[in-house]
Amino acid sequence: MSLLIIGSVAFDAIETPFGKTGKIVGGSASYISLASALLYPEVGLTAVVGEDFDFEFLKRLQAQGVDTSGVQVKQGEKSFFWSGKYHLDMNSRDTLTTELNVLGTFDPIIPENWNSPDYVMLGNLSPQVQMTTLDRLQKRPKLIVMDTMNFWMSVALDELKMVLNRVDLLTINDEEARELSGELSLVKAARKIMAMGPKYLVIKKGEHGALLFGPENQIYFCPALPLEEVFDPTGAGDTFAGGFLGYLASTGEVSFQAMKKALVYGSCAASFCIEKFGTQRLEEITRSDIEGRMTRFEQLIAL
Amino acid sequence: MSLLIIGSVAFDAIETPFGKTGKIVGGSASYISLASALLYPEVGLTAVVGEDFDFEFLKRLQAQGVDTSGVQVKQGEKSFFWSGKYHLDMNSRDTLTTELNVLGTFDPIIPENWNSPDYVMLGNLSPQVQMTTLDRLQKRPKLIVMDTMNFWMSVALDELKMVLNRVDLLTINDEEARELSGELSLVKAARKIMAMGPKYLVIKKGEHGALLFGPENQIYFCPALPLEEVFDPTGAGDTFAGGFLGYLASTGEVSFQAMKKALVYGSCAASFCIEKFGTQRLEEITRSDIEGRMTRFEQLIAL
Repeated sequence: MSLLIIGSVAFDAIETPFGKTGKIVGGSASYISLASALLYPEVGLTAVVGEDFDFEFLKRLQAQGVDTSGVQVKQGEKSFFWSGKYHLDMNSRDTLTTELNVLGTFDPIIPENWNSPDYVMLGNLSPQVQMTTLDRLQKRPKLIVMDTMNFWMSVALDELKMVLNRVDLLTINDEEARELSGELSLVKAARKIMAMGPKYLVIKKGEHGALLFGPENQIYFCPALPLEEVFDPTGAGDTFAGGFLGYLASTGEVSFQAMKKALVYGSCAASFCIEKFGTQRLEEITRSDIEGRMTRFEQLIAL
Repeated sequence: MSLLIIGSVAFDAIETPFGKTGKIVGGSASYISLASALLYPEVGLTAVVGEDFDFEFLKRLQAQGVDTSGVQVKQGEKSFFWSGKYHLDMNSRDTLTTELNVLGTFDPIIPENWNSPDYVMLGNLSPQVQMTTLDRLQKRPKLIVMDTMNFWMSVALDELKMVLNRVDLLTINDEEARELSGELSLVKAARKIMAMGPKYLVIKKGEHGALLFGPENQIYFCPALPLEEVFDPTGAGDTFAGGFLGYLASTGEVSFQAMKKALVYGSCAASFCIEKFGTQRLEEITRSDIEGRMTRFEQLIAL
């Protein structure tokens, strides 16, 4: 059993109403792999960084149990860099800078011992890179999960739909689900998106929780824990996906029933992520912290 | 055991992306009393209408089990009238017209057999009228629930706070909770609002569900059913409150535990309200329709 994650490992600079960072480690796959490794021991990461990267972070990932042998280091090049500033309500943000750098020519290398994984997470990357990743696997995984964002709907919709047709589960936020489907109702949007390929769909609604849609019109709603403070929402969606997949992989299952509980694990993992800047909080906690929030979660929804 | 409701019984004219009505019956207390009467047999209504009102509606309320002997009819005057137009996303609307008419001088008359109710719902009205209602009760009810809106925070904040200090439970939406408390975090907002008086607080988040806060930091989250289509959201919050109180009154309890299930009943009742214009759908359904949605609800959240 194994879980392969591909996505960005990068630098971010973040400004929120609570403060401002310099360049810190970010990227979809950083969050996904940290969160999944809290719940599952066999996590492999495929990504690309420049020679400017914070290599201590890769060591810390390894210490958490993430195999980073698939992370390429491009000499003479710079890591992907994003900077953004959150609005006062923390629900929206402006992108200040996007420097693709090494991501612009990313050609994923999947180490031999990782090319037959049971679970695959295609983090937010160009659909072309996501497709190449699938092409380089030696067998069909039990479950392929894909994340994406509205940017790719604008510039690479056809490629995005081709990947979508090859995956089992798509995670996107509510706004993106509406954009991809052209439907305002999330129930209708889900039906249209699932007709594009994936048997399962997770629509993320941030502080409003998440919806899981599955075969035979099954729907499950997973709330978010009500929190005193949201310090930095960056990476919350990726942490959610990582917690989801880490727990699911630990069960060995891919059923709707197992996915429901996996979503709750994802939600609890995400509730830690937003407590500090970047990946900091995820690097401090252990599985037992997540289990503690599972108890709070059960109280929140117990009828 | 009895449930007294006070609020507006009025005319609305509504425009949504799906269509447009002429003058139809609306008003907070119309929705609240219809929804609560679906779940509880002893509902009394106190309100005021003009001579132009649709008196067939009062007859239909009576047929549903609502005692309308507290509804005053002002000869020579007109009923309260509101008209509004919803935006494409149905989550926001513009008010086109507000004519106070009879509501401007509303002096509530509580029939003698209704002045010692066990449960009281103060629907959205001026805090002054809400206060007068409480003053005219002969004994302290087991539970006083109050609804309000941001308009009263702007024009009558002191009076609103005086009423708030006398009630057990406040229902408001998330935006209003933030405005009343000056806090962005709903958890912090809840703490501040409960320090103003009410032991319980329900924060309504529309399609995103509702949060119930109670003593000893108890929190319960009640989702909204994911719906194919929202035809007309007018009255959904009042229907939610009516379903909540109707069910709660039927249990005879006022505990946090009983309120949790009552919220789910409110949520299911509201899911019908939005399917047609105005009160139409609420007048068509029975308790067994609501019970049917309770089953869907249980499936939605079952882990």
